[in-house]
Amino acid sequence: MSITPLNNLSRLCIHTITTRAWSIETAAHKYSAAGVAGITVWRQALDGTTPRAAASTLASAGLEVVSLARGGFFPAVTAGARQTAIEQNRRALEECEILGAPVLVLVCGAVPEQSIETDLGQIRDGIETLLPQAQAAGVRLAIEPLHPMYADTRSAIVKMKTANDLCAQIDSSWLGITVDCYHVWWDPDLESEIERAAAASRLLSFHICDWKTPPEDMLNDRGLMGEGVIDIRGIRGMMERNGFEGYNEVEIFSNRWWAGDQDFFLEEIVRAYRECS
Amino acid sequence: MSITPLNNLSRLCIHTITTRAWSIETAAHKYSAAGVAGITVWRQALDGTTPRAAASTLASAGLEVVSLARGGFFPAVTAGARQTAIEQNRRALEECEILGAPVLVLVCGAVPEQSIETDLGQIRDGIETLLPQAQAAGVRLAIEPLHPMYADTRSAIVKMKTANDLCAQIDSSWLGITVDCYHVWWDPDLESEIERAAAASRLLSFHICDWKTPPEDMLNDRGLMGEGVIDIRGIRGMMERNGFEGYNEVEIFSNRWWAGDQDFFLEEIVRAYRECS
Repeated sequence: MSITPLNNLSRLCIHTITTRAWSIETAAHKYSAAGVAGITVWRQALDGTTPRAAASTLASAGLEVVSLARGGFFPAVTAGARQTAIEQNRRALEECEILGAPVLVLVCGAVPEQSIETDLGQIRDGIETLLPQAQAAGVRLAIEPLHPMYADTRSAIVKMKTANDLCAQIDSSWLGITVDCYHVWWDPDLESEIERAAAASRLLSFHICDWKTPPEDMLNDRGLMGEGVIDIRGIRGMMERNGFEGYNEVEIFSNRWWAGDQDFFLEEIVRAYRECS
Repeated sequence: MSITPLNNLSRLCIHTITTRAWSIETAAHKYSAAGVAGITVWRQALDGTTPRAAASTLASAGLEVVSLARGGFFPAVTAGARQTAIEQNRRALEECEILGAPVLVLVCGAVPEQSIETDLGQIRDGIETLLPQAQAAGVRLAIEPLHPMYADTRSAIVKMKTANDLCAQIDSSWLGITVDCYHVWWDPDLESEIERAAAASRLLSFHICDWKTPPEDMLNDRGLMGEGVIDIRGIRGMMERNGFEGYNEVEIFSNRWWAGDQDFFLEEIVRAYRECS
């Protein structure tokens, strides 16, 4: 393994959903005290505060805002519902601007009643509608391919190739890709698609966690790094060999970890980050 | 929709695992009485009987044996375990010969401790080892790409492209692909990969069932055709436009359906086959 060990935390970012029980103020304080350098804000973490207050909290804590999660969910059966989605994404872009988040992560959406082709067309329309605002705000849109087990209701984009294909069609420097190990680790073409994304300057962010064997829940049983089968270090190597220098963002949806002591969880994240990422 | 409606049962095949509670004798009798034309034998259905007795039962019932499921599971950490897998596959090929099954379906296997690359190499070795016996027996080996949610322990081959890539590398007319809607429906490149498989005469069999939204269990909550989101008719159209004339094989792993009355389930399969496939 030729990639650099993660012997410091300067590129460790945590998503606020990971420590879901904590308010954004608590998360900011705890992350900072633990030496974490970056934070990705899950939009729901802004409930009960304002983006401006959150921005101030995060700046005081010395945390770099890596991205806002999540926009997207463009497909819908009715034009009215698609317009509502656009408006929600516009608000998310405004929040990015206030927070200083350079990236809005997109979970692109899928509708059981529609074909994949229809979903993909509506996703493309939605992204193209948002791009002028994104550019004006200085915020990049990042398509996150989800795991194919979420293809029914969460994303018609479930492999790297489809994300690259769509980026190539739209062809904007304000559009790129979020690579999340959990969603794409299974793909034998992962490295070649990361190369393809990198060649077009599309590698915008990188999420890490692990795939337990077996997961007990399709949504909320992600593993801490090292608890599962994903070659996280290998995938990080693919990213870095292709020039990625951004954060390694820990994003763990886990009923099991959420039910435990969150201070201990944070300690374990830092330990696993050093040992298993 | 330009494809022919399934207004008769001449291409309906059922996998014995679908009505798991039934012995192979009961299944043969019931399927035949319901007008089902073909049967795929799950190897476990041979427990308590012999392949020769089963062959006789199926012939008496007038059922065509479409395939035997399943061989594969080639990767293993030790050479001894890989050899054991080869021996199990050799027995499966012998069973195919006795049953008159022209296809052995392969769930190719995956090992959590190994890389995808290592798994794929061992799968290739295993298939190449078996091919002479397969050819001598007149049995084709069919790689079944599984859903990526099974990439940890069941199959390193989780999309059509990887199956096509491996077939192209091995390049034997005794090797092809089983397309199972449940495993591949999410892939925007499905049609082009079916075309690619067809162009090399690799489309060996076709499985149908549905993806419920959401599945309650990652293994055993498949839906009857029409209960979920898969465009089964659309995928059947892709197969048929590319020259596939084989059976539509119903394979449903479902704790819910298994817990109910199996005669009613069989009636529902026939109804759903006509209405939703």
